[in-house]
Amino acid sequence: MSKSAQFIDYFLSHREITKELAAKIDPKHYTYKPTPTSMEAQKLVNHIIESTYTFVRLANKQDTEKLLDENDSTDLTEKVNTYTEATVKLLSALSDDDFEQVIDVSQILGKKVPASQLLNMAIDHEINHKGNLFVYLREMGHTNLPMYVKV
Amino acid sequence: MSKSAQFIDYFLSHREITKELAAKIDPKHYTYKPTPTSMEAQKLVNHIIESTYTFVRLANKQDTEKLLDENDSTDLTEKVNTYTEATVKLLSALSDDDFEQVIDVSQILGKKVPASQLLNMAIDHEINHKGNLFVYLREMGHTNLPMYVKV
Repeated sequence: MSKSAQFIDYFLSHREITKELAAKIDPKHYTYKPTPTSMEAQKLVNHIIESTYTFVRLANKQDTEKLLDENDSTDLTEKVNTYTEATVKLLSALSDDDFEQVIDVSQILGKKVPASQLLNMAIDHEINHKGNLFVYLREMGHTNLPMYVKV
Repeated sequence: MSKSAQFIDYFLSHREITKELAAKIDPKHYTYKPTPTSMEAQKLVNHIIESTYTFVRLANKQDTEKLLDENDSTDLTEKVNTYTEATVKLLSALSDDDFEQVIDVSQILGKKVPASQLLNMAIDHEINHKGNLFVYLREMGHTNLPMYVKV
């Protein structure tokens, strides 16, 4: 199994849960935030899917790019699908050697790291904010929630 | 650098943040929970540090073991330190070959996985619940919070 195929499996084991949580958010709760300094639910989902995509573009040595305006009215599930598809496409293009390439992310992280490490940081970032989202959903009244990862 | 040393660095890049968040919880908030079905703050921290330790014991082919009773009155920072020390000690004992060993976790995950994968799941589990904890802390009034990982 190629590194790319393995990584896509790993990415999707978390993204499936992000998608499941996003689908549970009623549009009337899109602007919900637990405290005044928290991100709104909708923006949190956008931040997750855009950030992972950005990390993956950097690992591919491509500039960042927004697929959708964060204020557009596309429903969240559709947004998640759009970003997931584009992210998988980029990951599919990585060869085993590409995972070892050093990527200069000095401006974001203050250092250069191998693409493999950058990709793992992308998933860690998604898991962290997905962990935030679980609390938001419970506060919206959902008690039947999935495990943090699809096994 | 050995796989063990690399993994310890990775583990600590997240555990440092868990510790920093735990230290910010005022004892009067130990029983705080955002909703009736949520875990109390204190139990959430216990769950994080115990689970990671359990995963690491399994990766070492050792039975699970509790280091502290979850109802004992040790302060949270001290508990985190106790578990962190024991976890690092176990990780240090793993050879590069140990990371490839297949571990039977059928009873928990319904399958057998290489130790390396089990160890990565341990960190993902910690990141997920640390993600919950960030929301708890903001709700306790903290607005000056660290990044999700130490870089």
